[in-house]
Amino acid sequence: MTSQELSANIQRKKSFLCVGLDTDPKKIPSHLLTNEDPIFDFNKAIIDATADLCVAYKPNLAFYESLGIKGWLALDKTVKYIRQNYPDQFLIADAKRGDIGNTSEMYARAFFSQFNFDSVTVAPYMGEDSVKPFLTYPGKWVILLALTSNRGSQDFQFATDETGLRLFENVLAKAQQWGTTENLMFVVGATQGNMFADVRKFVPNHFLLVPGVGAQGGDLYEVCKYGMNSQCGLLVNSSRQILYAESDISFAKCARNEAIKVQKDMEILLRRKELI
Amino acid sequence: MTSQELSANIQRKKSFLCVGLDTDPKKIPSHLLTNEDPIFDFNKAIIDATADLCVAYKPNLAFYESLGIKGWLALDKTVKYIRQNYPDQFLIADAKRGDIGNTSEMYARAFFSQFNFDSVTVAPYMGEDSVKPFLTYPGKWVILLALTSNRGSQDFQFATDETGLRLFENVLAKAQQWGTTENLMFVVGATQGNMFADVRKFVPNHFLLVPGVGAQGGDLYEVCKYGMNSQCGLLVNSSRQILYAESDISFAKCARNEAIKVQKDMEILLRRKELI
Repeated sequence: MTSQELSANIQRKKSFLCVGLDTDPKKIPSHLLTNEDPIFDFNKAIIDATADLCVAYKPNLAFYESLGIKGWLALDKTVKYIRQNYPDQFLIADAKRGDIGNTSEMYARAFFSQFNFDSVTVAPYMGEDSVKPFLTYPGKWVILLALTSNRGSQDFQFATDETGLRLFENVLAKAQQWGTTENLMFVVGATQGNMFADVRKFVPNHFLLVPGVGAQGGDLYEVCKYGMNSQCGLLVNSSRQILYAESDISFAKCARNEAIKVQKDMEILLRRKELI
Repeated sequence: MTSQELSANIQRKKSFLCVGLDTDPKKIPSHLLTNEDPIFDFNKAIIDATADLCVAYKPNLAFYESLGIKGWLALDKTVKYIRQNYPDQFLIADAKRGDIGNTSEMYARAFFSQFNFDSVTVAPYMGEDSVKPFLTYPGKWVILLALTSNRGSQDFQFATDETGLRLFENVLAKAQQWGTTENLMFVVGATQGNMFADVRKFVPNHFLLVPGVGAQGGDLYEVCKYGMNSQCGLLVNSSRQILYAESDISFAKCARNEAIKVQKDMEILLRRKELI
């Protein structure tokens, strides 16, 4: 998918919502647990209830890996289901991978060939050759961690180097030499508030993937105030707030209602910016 | 496994070799490819040929993920085979994971409960809450990336902060507040040579996992000169040099011969240090 196609989807749907499919067997409605594949059935219901309200889905791989083989099978079915039924969705493998060059090549193959994801999140610690193999697939994207939404982001990401750059700024600056606005996005946590202004100084035109709205406490209005650019340039993720809005048989309807709330807010923000 | 048990294995086997099971269908002997599970059959032959010469096995997850479900099945069989037949081996999931707290919990469950690995490699970029969930499993280990073996290690790991610490030193210093010498090791690439002296200033007593000897060009003697401590404190990995020593039917015998060469060198180095 190109950035233009993604921006067009955002305008058409009046939404830049990404639904995070962090599907946890301990949290899904109990009536599903006797099904043959409760994880896929839950995902399918959530997807059918939200697909017209969002432009992206983001399964976090940890949730599937923790279930072993049956988790990988459920993920495979989920990706195929979205591809077949909602081909306009941007699919993010939230995997936070990254290894030496010949190994990152294998991860790229896993997510772009074995699974047909559009993008994969990558950790920058190992530098250029750990990121570049992901950038060689036409139409596919790397979403590089820059400033994450968690408390631990304070430990290393703000360390200031000899040139006055903080580590996350160094990542933003260097990574632009590796990829373009057509194959590289960055993760910036919603909880980082006005840091979006600093991020935008480095990457005015790149898409940002923004986790941390909702359960983690990030504020959508603040994210947009500092982070939205003239093409929108944001994919804002919500996982728990939507997936687990209700735990009984009405879970999908309640998930839809939560997604509608977020989409309505996004519509207002897009209008304010005169993007729709 | 405790550090004492691991040190005892090193003394008994006169080896601190870790064999990296980076099994690539494109590189394994062609006569295996018609088997039902060529990846497992290759691993089994390599393991049987090297188990008395090494103290650890380290499958890199990327190689298995790139094969989809059948890769995960081969990995599962491999881990179980080692556990059943060579219970003294230390098993490392080279996965380089790391995510926000509730998600790292899921990864820990994947590698320590679904698979019965002893340890998992973790990337430090997201800080404390991305690492700690792995440290709550008794007898299990985090192996945290500090200074990696690849060219990209130059991009961020050497950035010096306000206090004069380089990023990898900052990782070594901070991580010691999260774990102990009984549940935390660090990755330091063999290609970093005399940087091992700097690493040992911060972590004199922790085990180090050392990739990069062999195909990547690291030197075992230099690693030991600067990195070995009074309990050895090193696990030195070799992957390609051993696995792909030969591509015909003699591959396992040739892998064994390569492993013997490394073990003999290690025996000399352990004697020099009067550890055996």
